Amino acid sequence: MCLNKNERIDMLYSNDIKIIQSPEVFSFSLDAVLLANFVQPIKKKSGKIVDLCAGNGAVGLFLSSKTQAQIVEVEIQERLADMAQRSIELNRLGNQMDVLNIDLANAYEYLQKDSFDTVTCNPPYFANLNDSKKNGNPYFAIARHEITVNLKKIIEITSGLLKMNGKAYFVHRPERSLELLTLLQNNRLAPKRVQLVYPKRKREANMILVEAIKDGHQQGIRFLPPITVFKDDDQYGPFVQEILYGGKKAK
Amino acid sequence: MCLNKNERIDMLYSNDIKIIQSPEVFSFSLDAVLLANFVQPIKKKSGKIVDLCAGNGAVGLFLSSKTQAQIVEVEIQERLADMAQRSIELNRLGNQMDVLNIDLANAYEYLQKDSFDTVTCNPPYFANLNDSKKNGNPYFAIARHEITVNLKKIIEITSGLLKMNGKAYFVHRPERSLELLTLLQNNRLAPKRVQLVYPKRKREANMILVEAIKDGHQQGIRFLPPITVFKDDDQYGPFVQEILYGGKKAK
Repeated sequence: MCLNKNERIDMLYSNDIKIIQSPEVFSFSLDAVLLANFVQPIKKKSGKIVDLCAGNGAVGLFLSSKTQAQIVEVEIQERLADMAQRSIELNRLGNQMDVLNIDLANAYEYLQKDSFDTVTCNPPYFANLNDSKKNGNPYFAIARHEITVNLKKIIEITSGLLKMNGKAYFVHRPERSLELLTLLQNNRLAPKRVQLVYPKRKREANMILVEAIKDGHQQGIRFLPPITVFKDDDQYGPFVQEILYGGKKAK
Repeated sequence: MCLNKNERIDMLYSNDIKIIQSPEVFSFSLDAVLLANFVQPIKKKSGKIVDLCAGNGAVGLFLSSKTQAQIVEVEIQERLADMAQRSIELNRLGNQMDVLNIDLANAYEYLQKDSFDTVTCNPPYFANLNDSKKNGNPYFAIARHEITVNLKKIIEITSGLLKMNGKAYFVHRPERSLELLTLLQNNRLAPKRVQLVYPKRKREANMILVEAIKDGHQQGIRFLPPITVFKDDDQYGPFVQEILYGGKKAK
């Protein structure tokens, strides 16, 4: 296993997953950890999962301990896709996981339509407005801004890849939640479970997790108990503490 | 002040408002208290507020201590409208408040379009399906089920009554939140603030509060800190305790 310059190996202790990170190009954030925790993936070995906008593969890697299904990571940036591939090898997950270093726009050339049980995505959060301040580092800019793909396109492809009754999972910023919920409903994806994430007590939410079912009834959305990340003393609260460091989960 | 048979006077201690209740026909619930707390009404004396589906007038009565504006209560049920009127007199709020005992469908015959600064509504929560179990008591059935009016109609009229940049406030059940948010957006009402209400820690939300602005930008929705009603010991938590019994608010 080779680490490139400025790379390090981080660990998600709760499931013993090692992940290659680089502050130079990309590090996974709590968003990926909370998304993987929120996802209820297909479990059986014949199941198929795809993680879109995969970055260094964090969401898929974290999910691997919750399922026996095949997991494909789709990432447009070659350097990040390469990090994801090496993390898969590092965790000896080569039999369960693959990386596709492709533009999402070409997804159907590589991935069969209507064939996936679970789609996950931690998309770029910010619209690609001409006047928006972007990070000068293109790795961060592409991961954070809708430069190579936008939410509408991501959701169209999510719906296209999913089987009927397959489930899609997104994490996004609350200020784009209406757009997210509307796009889902307009693409045969019925929002079913929502969980709001608050940085601290008495603060507004800074993250939203959404589960939607392809061709599900457009009724009966549920709001799970809120997640509060930090305690008043700025230490992680019990929920996040458990996800990051908690007892080992059964494979 | 006459109380009719089976009526009693309840009190919201936090603002000294007395309200005539009757277990026979209608009692306000925590929903009305939380809605009134959530509302940021126009404050000035020349402002105009209307509360739709007013029941026994709870929301408007509670709001009266937060504003000098005129408040109109619209209620279709004669007996409830009469209770609201007597509560207004009981609190000596006759100069600030009025009751209109009309069908909301005829609102524009009595209330000027595009003239209100603030509209509030605690609507019937349940669709009027043929197979839905309704309370045999027609007072409760009309208050709880969409028998005389439905959410689509309520939101159309809300939008029609509001001035440009006027604000609408709704409380509803989470399972109808997608419908509510979509109807708002389809009627020139941009959702701006949302607050989820959870009955207890680790439980799913059972109430949603929404603020929308007429002709506001369809962007930038915020999720306020969650409200948790009860503590683990089934006593009211500090937030609700304060709203129900807390220190007197400045008039």
